[in-house]
Amino acid sequence: MIYDLIIVGGGPAGMAAGIYAARQKLNTLLITKDFGGQMARKAVAIENYPGFGEISGFELINKFAAHLKKFPVEILQDAVVRIKKTGQTFSIFTKNKKTIQAKAVIIASGADPRPLELPGEKKFIGKGVSYCTACDAPLFAGKKVAVVGGGNSGFEAAIALSKWSKKIYVLERGSKVRADQRNQEIAKKTGKIEIITDVVLKEVKGKNFVNSIVYQDKKRKNNITLSVEGIFVEIGSQPATSFVKGLVGFNKRDEIKISLETCQTKTPGLFAAGDVTIIPYKQIVIAAGQGTIAALSVSNYLSKQSEG
Amino acid sequence: MIYDLIIVGGGPAGMAAGIYAARQKLNTLLITKDFGGQMARKAVAIENYPGFGEISGFELINKFAAHLKKFPVEILQDAVVRIKKTGQTFSIFTKNKKTIQAKAVIIASGADPRPLELPGEKKFIGKGVSYCTACDAPLFAGKKVAVVGGGNSGFEAAIALSKWSKKIYVLERGSKVRADQRNQEIAKKTGKIEIITDVVLKEVKGKNFVNSIVYQDKKRKNNITLSVEGIFVEIGSQPATSFVKGLVGFNKRDEIKISLETCQTKTPGLFAAGDVTIIPYKQIVIAAGQGTIAALSVSNYLSKQSEG
Repeated sequence: MIYDLIIVGGGPAGMAAGIYAARQKLNTLLITKDFGGQMARKAVAIENYPGFGEISGFELINKFAAHLKKFPVEILQDAVVRIKKTGQTFSIFTKNKKTIQAKAVIIASGADPRPLELPGEKKFIGKGVSYCTACDAPLFAGKKVAVVGGGNSGFEAAIALSKWSKKIYVLERGSKVRADQRNQEIAKKTGKIEIITDVVLKEVKGKNFVNSIVYQDKKRKNNITLSVEGIFVEIGSQPATSFVKGLVGFNKRDEIKISLETCQTKTPGLFAAGDVTIIPYKQIVIAAGQGTIAALSVSNYLSKQSEG
Repeated sequence: MIYDLIIVGGGPAGMAAGIYAARQKLNTLLITKDFGGQMARKAVAIENYPGFGEISGFELINKFAAHLKKFPVEILQDAVVRIKKTGQTFSIFTKNKKTIQAKAVIIASGADPRPLELPGEKKFIGKGVSYCTACDAPLFAGKKVAVVGGGNSGFEAAIALSKWSKKIYVLERGSKVRADQRNQEIAKKTGKIEIITDVVLKEVKGKNFVNSIVYQDKKRKNNITLSVEGIFVEIGSQPATSFVKGLVGFNKRDEIKISLETCQTKTPGLFAAGDVTIIPYKQIVIAAGQGTIAALSVSNYLSKQSEG
């Protein structure tokens, strides 16, 4: 059997694509490890998905998933390891050794947190090093922690941690932080958050668990050891695209090049939507809008195929 | 006083832009006649705004408006008649004779229903001719009506009317209807909807109120008079752009040309989002995503202005 459409990814873009594809009566399979994408990592309430004044990431995922499940979209809990196109048909190979075919594919695999690539970092994952404040903040109740990254994500992580931890350092590489004014104000009000700029990270240290992070002060050129029991990494994300190399073009940030009008990649029938693409702003409502464009474009693409 | 941003329009694109602009601490004014845009004309429940499985247009407008009002965005109930740029500053002239200045503008004025441009049409507006099924369907309880347009909007109007009217003709210019399968199935189930294709409309007739519509059967070349007491026009929309001529480029459908990456028009500082733009798919979530892109682009534009 050949599906009309396989959607790779269960974040906002993939779920929106699924809703629209089903409404276009496309026989659709959605493959994902889990639902939610970046929403699942949100440590503070989401205040900017229009229609929901304030909602937790977890709740918003459930709303999207419930909406999707109203429609007959098949869901496979698996990961895609390779995509191949032969003639007009795509073959999708999964981690659990399945091979599935489709006439069109939407890649909505989102992005993974970018690691620091620092000595000691990998060793202490789950032992003090975390990429998910929403998941791990409560483990650091009463402790000192560091958040790496002075953008909005870093500040939101620090604000969320301030409910648990006694002291949070926000470490920023540049000479000033990049978070928006609102987040900076909220951070200040907590009275627990200290911002350190001009930071060049050197090493994560510990015994069984993290006990410190070493950095160089870029201005004074001296090395400083900061005692912390937790390190939250918030320096952006990298698109999850390893399985699709060869079929699509990438920009220098390894994001998939698409036509923003149709979400189609350079391979006919292969579309991409959401944070995995070149779209400059990574926001839930933008990703959902792109998933919608991709699904409607797939419907057009398949109508033309069947006519031709 | 000069606002950072004026948003023209209170539909999904304008409201999403307002939410994001306020979160960026932009001093923002939103000018609109009313909230909701095309959502207000939706006669059947909205089932495709991700996160709300099924919601009426009216309710979704209220959710968006409540979300917007959480933030300090000023709202002016008025209509924009002209926009002028002098140096770096925009002057906005309103119907109520106000002149307001801003550093940046987002046009999110949406689209108005496209008229038939038929003899008798104007004369019977409000007397049988309607462009808003959501508003007027109950007035036609127990009556025979015609819906002009065999796309999704036409079918949705016919389905909504089937709760009230005893018979609904869907008149389609082409040789087949364009509504999606799901809508065609629902229409069929009502048992009240008759589809007539190959229709060339000629005239709206009546005395005090509409009593018939005249059309030519494109294949047989004969004129037919169809007795109806209501005519619902669902042949698409035309962008509301009269006030902005000169500052932006248009495509052949009179939609505003923008960079889909930033939503900026050819005039620096002047952005556009939603159904008023060239974006091919007119959907609530796509419009909201575009409003978000426009607001974030305005924020970038203003930061660069203040640095330069």
